[in-house]
Amino acid sequence: MKRNFPRRMLVACFSWCVLFWAAPLEAQLQSFSKQELIDYTSKNPFDRLPDGRPKVPDALLDRARDLSAEDIWATLQEKGYNNQFADGFILAHPGKALVGRAFTVQFMPLRADVDDVAQAKAKTHGIERLMNQTAIDMLQPGDVLVVDLFGKKVDGTIVGDNLFYYVMVATRGGGLVVDGSVRDLDGISQIDMPAYFRATDPTPIGNVMLTGINVPVRIGGTTVMPGDLVVGDREGVYFIPPQFAKEVLDHADEIHIHDEWTKKKFAEGKYRSSEIYGSPKDPALKKEYEDYLKKRLGEIHKEQGEKEQKQP
Amino acid sequence: MKRNFPRRMLVACFSWCVLFWAAPLEAQLQSFSKQELIDYTSKNPFDRLPDGRPKVPDALLDRARDLSAEDIWATLQEKGYNNQFADGFILAHPGKALVGRAFTVQFMPLRADVDDVAQAKAKTHGIERLMNQTAIDMLQPGDVLVVDLFGKKVDGTIVGDNLFYYVMVATRGGGLVVDGSVRDLDGISQIDMPAYFRATDPTPIGNVMLTGINVPVRIGGTTVMPGDLVVGDREGVYFIPPQFAKEVLDHADEIHIHDEWTKKKFAEGKYRSSEIYGSPKDPALKKEYEDYLKKRLGEIHKEQGEKEQKQP
Amino acid sequence: MKRNFPRRMLVACFSWCVLFWAAPLEAQLQSFSKQELIDYTSKNPFDRLPDGRPKVPDALLDRARDLSAEDIWATLQEKGYNNQFADGFILAHPGKALVGRAFTVQFMPLRADVDDVAQAKAKTHGIERLMNQTAIDMLQPGDVLVVDLFGKKVDGTIVGDNLFYYVMVATRGGGLVVDGSVRDLDGISQIDMPAYFRATDPTPIGNVMLTGINVPVRIGGTTVMPGDLVVGDREGVYFIPPQFAKEVLDHADEIHIHDEWTKKKFAEGKYRSSEIYGSPKDPALKKEYEDYLKKRLGEIHKEQGEKEQKQP
Amino acid sequence: MKRNFPRRMLVACFSWCVLFWAAPLEAQLQSFSKQELIDYTSKNPFDRLPDGRPKVPDALLDRARDLSAEDIWATLQEKGYNNQFADGFILAHPGKALVGRAFTVQFMPLRADVDDVAQAKAKTHGIERLMNQTAIDMLQPGDVLVVDLFGKKVDGTIVGDNLFYYVMVATRGGGLVVDGSVRDLDGISQIDMPAYFRATDPTPIGNVMLTGINVPVRIGGTTVMPGDLVVGDREGVYFIPPQFAKEVLDHADEIHIHDEWTKKKFAEGKYRSSEIYGSPKDPALKKEYEDYLKKRLGEIHKEQGEKEQKQP
Amino acid sequence: MKRNFPRRMLVACFSWCVLFWAAPLEAQLQSFSKQELIDYTSKNPFDRLPDGRPKVPDALLDRARDLSAEDIWATLQEKGYNNQFADGFILAHPGKALVGRAFTVQFMPLRADVDDVAQAKAKTHGIERLMNQTAIDMLQPGDVLVVDLFGKKVDGTIVGDNLFYYVMVATRGGGLVVDGSVRDLDGISQIDMPAYFRATDPTPIGNVMLTGINVPVRIGGTTVMPGDLVVGDREGVYFIPPQFAKEVLDHADEIHIHDEWTKKKFAEGKYRSSEIYGSPKDPALKKEYEDYLKKRLGEIHKEQGEKEQKQP
Amino acid sequence: MKRNFPRRMLVACFSWCVLFWAAPLEAQLQSFSKQELIDYTSKNPFDRLPDGRPKVPDALLDRARDLSAEDIWATLQEKGYNNQFADGFILAHPGKALVGRAFTVQFMPLRADVDDVAQAKAKTHGIERLMNQTAIDMLQPGDVLVVDLFGKKVDGTIVGDNLFYYVMVATRGGGLVVDGSVRDLDGISQIDMPAYFRATDPTPIGNVMLTGINVPVRIGGTTVMPGDLVVGDREGVYFIPPQFAKEVLDHADEIHIHDEWTKKKFAEGKYRSSEIYGSPKDPALKKEYEDYLKKRLGEIHKEQGEKEQKQP
Repeated sequence: MKRNFPRRMLVACFSWCVLFWAAPLEAQLQSFSKQELIDYTSKNPFDRLPDGRPKVPDALLDRARDLSAEDIWATLQEKGYNNQFADGFILAHPGKALVGRAFTVQFMPLRADVDDVAQAKAKTHGIERLMNQTAIDMLQPGDVLVVDLFGKKVDGTIVGDNLFYYVMVATRGGGLVVDGSVRDLDGISQIDMPAYFRATDPTPIGNVMLTGINVPVRIGGTTVMPGDLVVGDREGVYFIPPQFAKEVLDHADEIHIHDEWTKKKFAEGKYRSSEIYGSPKDPALKKEYEDYLKKRLGEIHKEQGEKEQKQP
Repeated sequence: MKRNFPRRMLVACFSWCVLFWAAPLEAQLQSFSKQELIDYTSKNPFDRLPDGRPKVPDALLDRARDLSAEDIWATLQEKGYNNQFADGFILAHPGKALVGRAFTVQFMPLRADVDDVAQAKAKTHGIERLMNQTAIDMLQPGDVLVVDLFGKKVDGTIVGDNLFYYVMVATRGGGLVVDGSVRDLDGISQIDMPAYFRATDPTPIGNVMLTGINVPVRIGGTTVMPGDLVVGDREGVYFIPPQFAKEVLDHADEIHIHDEWTKKKFAEGKYRSSEIYGSPKDPALKKEYEDYLKKRLGEIHKEQGEKEQKQP
Repeated sequence: MKRNFPRRMLVACFSWCVLFWAAPLEAQLQSFSKQELIDYTSKNPFDRLPDGRPKVPDALLDRARDLSAEDIWATLQEKGYNNQFADGFILAHPGKALVGRAFTVQFMPLRADVDDVAQAKAKTHGIERLMNQTAIDMLQPGDVLVVDLFGKKVDGTIVGDNLFYYVMVATRGGGLVVDGSVRDLDGISQIDMPAYFRATDPTPIGNVMLTGINVPVRIGGTTVMPGDLVVGDREGVYFIPPQFAKEVLDHADEIHIHDEWTKKKFAEGKYRSSEIYGSPKDPALKKEYEDYLKKRLGEIHKEQGEKEQKQP
Repeated sequence: MKRNFPRRMLVACFSWCVLFWAAPLEAQLQSFSKQELIDYTSKNPFDRLPDGRPKVPDALLDRARDLSAEDIWATLQEKGYNNQFADGFILAHPGKALVGRAFTVQFMPLRADVDDVAQAKAKTHGIERLMNQTAIDMLQPGDVLVVDLFGKKVDGTIVGDNLFYYVMVATRGGGLVVDGSVRDLDGISQIDMPAYFRATDPTPIGNVMLTGINVPVRIGGTTVMPGDLVVGDREGVYFIPPQFAKEVLDHADEIHIHDEWTKKKFAEGKYRSSEIYGSPKDPALKKEYEDYLKKRLGEIHKEQGEKEQKQP
Repeated sequence: MKRNFPRRMLVACFSWCVLFWAAPLEAQLQSFSKQELIDYTSKNPFDRLPDGRPKVPDALLDRARDLSAEDIWATLQEKGYNNQFADGFILAHPGKALVGRAFTVQFMPLRADVDDVAQAKAKTHGIERLMNQTAIDMLQPGDVLVVDLFGKKVDGTIVGDNLFYYVMVATRGGGLVVDGSVRDLDGISQIDMPAYFRATDPTPIGNVMLTGINVPVRIGGTTVMPGDLVVGDREGVYFIPPQFAKEVLDHADEIHIHDEWTKKKFAEGKYRSSEIYGSPKDPALKKEYEDYLKKRLGEIHKEQGEKEQKQP
Repeated sequence: MKRNFPRRMLVACFSWCVLFWAAPLEAQLQSFSKQELIDYTSKNPFDRLPDGRPKVPDALLDRARDLSAEDIWATLQEKGYNNQFADGFILAHPGKALVGRAFTVQFMPLRADVDDVAQAKAKTHGIERLMNQTAIDMLQPGDVLVVDLFGKKVDGTIVGDNLFYYVMVATRGGGLVVDGSVRDLDGISQIDMPAYFRATDPTPIGNVMLTGINVPVRIGGTTVMPGDLVVGDREGVYFIPPQFAKEVLDHADEIHIHDEWTKKKFAEGKYRSSEIYGSPKDPALKKEYEDYLKKRLGEIHKEQGEKEQKQP
């Protein structure tokens, strides 16, 4: 998978972000303090970002690039988490994996009396104007921008190609999921960052008010928490609670090996599908598979260990 | 309009409600404190309910029973409030006016990690279990229950006929608007309270979590604030910010007189529509209309004054 | 079928209509001269209205009140006219027959450069402003207002209750078919005229331009010509070319007798459905039916003859 | 609930039906022999009709007239039967209970090569022509005609008002459920039998072939077996396997008493909803309810016993 | 058109298939015996597969790779077969031709009482468990798997990438048409076999029961018979009764030559479209075309003859 | 952007077109004379084609190939033209710019009485048969064929691959926009001309009548006038009144420079999005941008000047 983005160029930047986080976000209609965020994501086993979001480690993000929706389904349904998948999106780059940490943003239909109060509160916190860029300016490397625009098409375009480009730079190609629309699709098609949206429209965003940054949001039938591990493939997007990230990935390794072996056996043309899949019926085959699994898992773990060591 | 509901029976009850309000609601995922509610509805010209919601006076609620969507549209669009109307509902009792103060409730798709925290917090505030009845138990006379269940059909049934009956009792026939479904439609059809819903389903509510009571909610393309004046007719539902309630009603009086006069003239069969409607072209007719308007307004104001005096 | 409308009151009015017709309608974007109208409806066997539309006689309109969609289907499909039925409407008064002569109106999405020219042309013909009322003012007793508003909901409301009332007065309760919306549904529900529409909305008509009066229009999959016999039942609306009106009605008489007899036989409980319907298998039954048909047709024709004599 | 249908008139008829059953139905594309039918409904605890279908007793049918979808849901979901409910229908008579034994019919899109073979086979069995009336002629008192027309609208009209009338006579007002359409809606609206359909259309049935009578059919997400207890309310239709009929009804009796008591308590206005519903929290209230339940069940059982005795 | 699949590897395998066919399939709910299959496809002019399905010869399958929906439409509508085309699918590999013999499979919504009987019957025939793999294991080279899963998305995934791979191996890249969904779209996208489906979902197949293998099935508005020639292009899928296969292909040859010539003439830029297309008006041009047709048909026939000779 | 089309070959052809225009088009149901066309497009600042349509110059067409929907939106909304964009199409070649002058065609549902008159009138004007090719034969280089087929899918296919090829030749690759369908999608996919359509279908066009050539037509929510500048990108199609063509293009130049500079600054990774976009806050940055704009505009204008000089 080609990653066009020039990583070097961005090494030292975005230091202002950390500072910016200090600015209280209570100005928004849907307030969700850093403490509330920590409380509601208390099962997070990893570090946290300065803003309080769980920080799924970069090494796991890297491993997650090979995940497909089905790999994730198996683990999450076992845990009883059946509401973490959203689909029905248009994809800017089908085939390009979407992986990152959820940075959530919520909009609601504009009503001036409410927005006036929110804007006034924002001003007292040094934010000139609450708008889509207020949130976009806070994006971090590794983030996926997850936006609830309640499926709005006209006036519901979270970004055009300029801000889409900015999101790519700021997140290092993290990605975008919007229950709403984008504009400048021709431009966006030429920028190498995965994007999931409901529609396109030539209008800029309008007739809405920004009501929450890094609050719980709803995307389709899913509740997304800030810091969720976001993984998208051709089918749709999974929002994985951080506490399940490792288990999902480990299970996926086994699934991949199983699929590898299964297809290899099928390619031999000697077996009916039910002799091999879901699991081999014949004890000898079962043994063969288990040996293969063990060997391949060993190789994978070794490879993963080496990768992690190489990272600073 | 027949009102089946036996008002006498309920005179002395619900005193516990006031006490119940003291229990903090911060246990919910989407917290919105009484102070925040007051801040964000600061343009409210009326008293407030114990929970902080604006209290559009009963006399205005009574007058609002004659409003149609079009009466409201004229005033709100003049104010620049174009996002206050929601439609696309199924109506349990078309032709029965829906009028009351918005009591809002929000649900989101269940995820156990988040719900566990919310339930634990609720318990520390003396709430045994956060669920639809937690909110329903707090309803007051004159309320309309406004529920965001994100359009969910299966498992998205806010009430069946038992709780629907309770809502009628508790709100004195106020009503229900749910961006979701109801169950027991046959039973509900026999209970004389207006209800607006997206679908019906035999399942009870499930696979969701209660995330907010009297928080700002989204219904269709509308942001509803707790305490909004809710008015529904055959077409859909308007959520009127309290600061516009009186102006809407006064304007509607004029519209009704205008319509009365217009139809009277049309019935004479002597005029083309454009001679009379929108406003009469002929100066003599214009004068006739203005005199009629003045006279009828006088009558209406007198009648309203008498009604208000009769009320304790 | 109750007809609330006070017919007496309207006897002498609308004389201005005839004069008004003299005003040329070439001002509209889609011009269709009286001569063109006559050319394209040259198979019309009846008189014409002053505006050139075929005038299906009042006596046939009266007979058409008993027609259902199925009665019409049989004759028109035999003629190879399979595109004359439109459905998918909301009905203001299901069960109330819609019958009348098509008065067609066409709107298109507003573009100011085109509308400016049309309005300027209209002014030179003494029409102050081309708008929905320009057409509505031209309605005649017995007309059904048929409007192509290309399915527009918001801003696509051809009438509210005031103009709906006017249409009832002007057409003597003829009716309305609009591929668009209406407003003031509560008001319209109390006015006793059949109406077929796609949606309701609180907005008034706007963002469109009037582009044709009594031009050919498209309603669903149907081409409607001015003067078509419009017949609507619970299922939808048929637009019958005038040249088939009599044949449709005569055939319907036979269908009604056939249905009468068929149900009578079914009620006896002695026959399987296929022994009686479509047509009786047994020669004796066949004879019985044919005698019945003959007798009843005779009765009906006598009754029709008497009715026609009574009319001035 | 008014039952317009003159039951007396039909007492002695339809004796030919029994004979007719002897005619083999193997002519159809989807054959399902009487033995197969018996095998696949082997859990049926009741007698069988001559055609092999389970015969839910008339007394249970009578009791089932008070069922709502929710009453049924509770028992079936407990049994793990979650696919027995279909909705999304238009109802000819909302509020009129649909109750009866499923008589199933299946159509598929016409292809002449297949239909020719089926028709030829039919002829060798004395059936002149396989068509909708072939099935309709076989209907029995107490049947509900359940038809899979794969949602077809145009040419998918199982009956018009004539055959609808016949179905009413033959089934004694049993009813119709069609995943397809009907024609002559105006006529059908005047015939007092419940009907559930997807659409209406003026065309007669066509471009399809009859492929099965009393075979398993699919209606929405439901597999319907011949002889299923069909119960429809305003929400939709339940197809209840006969082995659960009695348990559903007994459970429903308890639900009705529970609802009765719950509403009575709510009407007192002294309790919050959660004190009473789902079940009373307070031991004294719980006792009160249990006593009430016992007493009312006793009354109901007595009443049911008397009814059954009165029946011949 | 690249065919990635390694044909050599599979030459000697699948011999067990023939034997497997001997196992009776009467265990299924929708039984359709080999004799019934033969009866209902009696117009088949070709050999039959061991399971009784018509075997459209490999040489015709090869020729069919150039067919488009329009080539087929012309012949089938002439024969009066207007229900053989299904569309509205998502395509895994647009531009890759789908060609093969229909192997049909039917599922219905699960109901345990029925499935228990079917599974018990299956066991007596040596089938451990009726499931999707029961059918998949029976696939033959040249087959297209055609599955009626009644449009089910969630739990309606006939295969993921493992079984999709198996289907490719077993059918030699034949293909898949499912009125339902698939999972593992990312994986499937990398496997070079045409696939037509309604949706994707991360869930595995469930909550359904296998009710028929090689029975007549309905896909959209089409009745598919086992052994139909399946041809899919970017628009959708045609199911061609075998008796028309040769005529369709011969006619298509003429259509292709006609298109070739037509475009050649258009490219000259000397003619208006109507001078050349549908057929040339000018006698000289007509002659030119007829000569061209004759010459090219000769070439094609020669080429086809050579190809057939080369095949063993 | 590769242009496959061999321009040389077509240099001298189509001279007959001019003559052909002389043939009166009044034969059509929706007549719109050359004078009417000129009247209603009187703001056109450019020359006109022989048929009266505004002729947006070739040089502007060339510049328009870089336009995106958003570039156009900015100018048109400023002018108050909000109804000029249509979307919801399937694109044959996403990423290939659609640019040309609107050649409009209108169809309506067939009714024989009307079509007979139109065909007879056509014959008197030397047109053998009014049909899609009547219009297609009149296409000019630089045209985009814009067809109102009222969203018809079955029988609503304006062209198959043969006529699509012809349209490409005649318009020099101009393009097609049809509110209807096309057939032969596989063939069309191989012909290098942009095409926007609603659906595909194997049927040829039928059951419609040609009612207007170069009349005002409605495409989605847009009124298209003959001669409009048609510009399509991945999102949809803009129909630009000629009087705005130059202003749109000039404004787009500035937008492109703005986007260029904005992305350049974003790529530096030193700024938050709101410091740069919509316009730079910092005066120094603002100055930098303005200098850049000036310089780049100069370069562009020079380049445009050179291009125009090179053209004959």
